[in-house]
Amino acid sequence: MMRTMSKIIFGIDLGGTRIKIGLFDINGNLISKGDIPTDTSNNGQNIIDDIARELLRSLEERQAGLADIVGIGIDVPGAVLGHTTVNRCVNLGWGLVDVSSKLSEAMGIPRDWVIVGNDANVAALGEFFDGGAKEYSSMMMVTIGTGVGGGLIMDGNIIDGVNGAAAEIGHIPVSDDLDFDCSCGNRGCLEQLASATAIARMAGTADAKEAFDRAYAGDELAVKAIDTAAEALGKAMAAVACVVDPECFLIGGGVAAAGEKFIEKIRASYAKRAFHSSKKTKILRAKLGNDAGIYGCARMILNRYE
Amino acid sequence: MMRTMSKIIFGIDLGGTRIKIGLFDINGNLISKGDIPTDTSNNGQNIIDDIARELLRSLEERQAGLADIVGIGIDVPGAVLGHTTVNRCVNLGWGLVDVSSKLSEAMGIPRDWVIVGNDANVAALGEFFDGGAKEYSSMMMVTIGTGVGGGLIMDGNIIDGVNGAAAEIGHIPVSDDLDFDCSCGNRGCLEQLASATAIARMAGTADAKEAFDRAYAGDELAVKAIDTAAEALGKAMAAVACVVDPECFLIGGGVAAAGEKFIEKIRASYAKRAFHSSKKTKILRAKLGNDAGIYGCARMILNRYE
Repeated sequence: MMRTMSKIIFGIDLGGTRIKIGLFDINGNLISKGDIPTDTSNNGQNIIDDIARELLRSLEERQAGLADIVGIGIDVPGAVLGHTTVNRCVNLGWGLVDVSSKLSEAMGIPRDWVIVGNDANVAALGEFFDGGAKEYSSMMMVTIGTGVGGGLIMDGNIIDGVNGAAAEIGHIPVSDDLDFDCSCGNRGCLEQLASATAIARMAGTADAKEAFDRAYAGDELAVKAIDTAAEALGKAMAAVACVVDPECFLIGGGVAAAGEKFIEKIRASYAKRAFHSSKKTKILRAKLGNDAGIYGCARMILNRYE
Repeated sequence: MMRTMSKIIFGIDLGGTRIKIGLFDINGNLISKGDIPTDTSNNGQNIIDDIARELLRSLEERQAGLADIVGIGIDVPGAVLGHTTVNRCVNLGWGLVDVSSKLSEAMGIPRDWVIVGNDANVAALGEFFDGGAKEYSSMMMVTIGTGVGGGLIMDGNIIDGVNGAAAEIGHIPVSDDLDFDCSCGNRGCLEQLASATAIARMAGTADAKEAFDRAYAGDELAVKAIDTAAEALGKAMAAVACVVDPECFLIGGGVAAAGEKFIEKIRASYAKRAFHSSKKTKILRAKLGNDAGIYGCARMILNRYE
């Protein structure tokens, strides 16, 4: 059997419960994907070895060797320093971890083959190049899940800010009327009105899915909860446009899957609040779903060679 | 008498009442400055010729010639397309004007020697390289005057946005409680609570200067007006930090001259509202005052050669 000679890129989306692994060709096309569980026992000390083992297995399966690897992109749920090191991942049990050093040592490859990024930023990069914002020059991604996160891409690059806090749009102040604090310690953050958690709280439902189901069935409280979330999102996005004036917004995350009606409400709120020059900025749905992370990881490697 | 051989850069800040002209050496040092009135009669059709005449006079005075010009940077109070053309300057009476073509023709120099920028953005560029933000890597300038404007600099470049509306921070939504519209047509914009106009309105004074004087003398209404302005500014700046997370904020414009106490109030409001990672972001006063424009204009030319 002939040995597969083509060069490959690994994209690894390291989440709190699963580790998604994508294998890409050097043009950024996804060849295959899979996942393994995240072992968070003993402060996540097995995670890197588990990943290395899986990558080596995948190479062997393809009859490929270490020399076939162009690079490994990996995203983590935490702040990243110098594209190599994670500074605290609560969900993994990690403190300061030099992921580039550890993974490259476990694999037996040079350290600079491994590039590390923050999960929200990297997912945005994936959507920008291969997903919903493919045809745009700049984008703010708004990810609505347990919290509200974001990712800002300008000129093809992730904008991460001097403290790694750029695109932390869940914490834009949008309300003076709340009587409880946000998880961040402030009060009145977008996340307190627009996350899945917030929607369920306001609708009095077990989760956001139930809130949307009830709203579509006409339940008044659920409709009001969803209107409040859409209002807050449009207002925060109007603020974003007054800062960076992106060519489009992309709505991602579990709640975005709720459908076009919700996006329409966000568009209406945005149009009401946005500065006139930016009123027509496109608000689109993300396309890659759970694959955004692995695509973005591969893109970190591809961008290095451009 | 020996002819002066050194190369020069002109920086021209084209305002609605005066045109400031700075003469810089090729290291960006200001050698001399002056100004001429802006002739807005006949839809401002004499402005370009007036500038050309003054520049030629200045060259002659220095016994220099056209070949000594490295470039001419000029800023205008309006949106700029392609670093050459202004799209409507209400204050000058201009519609679509290709400033690079007109000024270069009037001078007898190549068109690409003339670079045009928006006044707020260019002033920010000046403060970034030669003023209050000299030692920082990224900056949001907040200019408080008749309105509230801004300028965002990242990696040494002006971020102007896809519609030229980046850093339009005066129109970040900050309030749900106003019962009148902003000049932009929306309601609840920062500018409605924090411009010089807004401060005077809230304090019941003729202008913002009187409001600050009265506030320092203990007048309750004036104190409240200034507190409201500072609260709104801190809140909008917290939103800015959640989008681009700049290394510093710079407060400029007439109202910033009101003094350190006002800046302290803005700092307190910001610290209360900002996301934890960005809470310590520096909030400084602009340093160049009315010279920020000419410095920024010279910098547009210098940046071209870097």
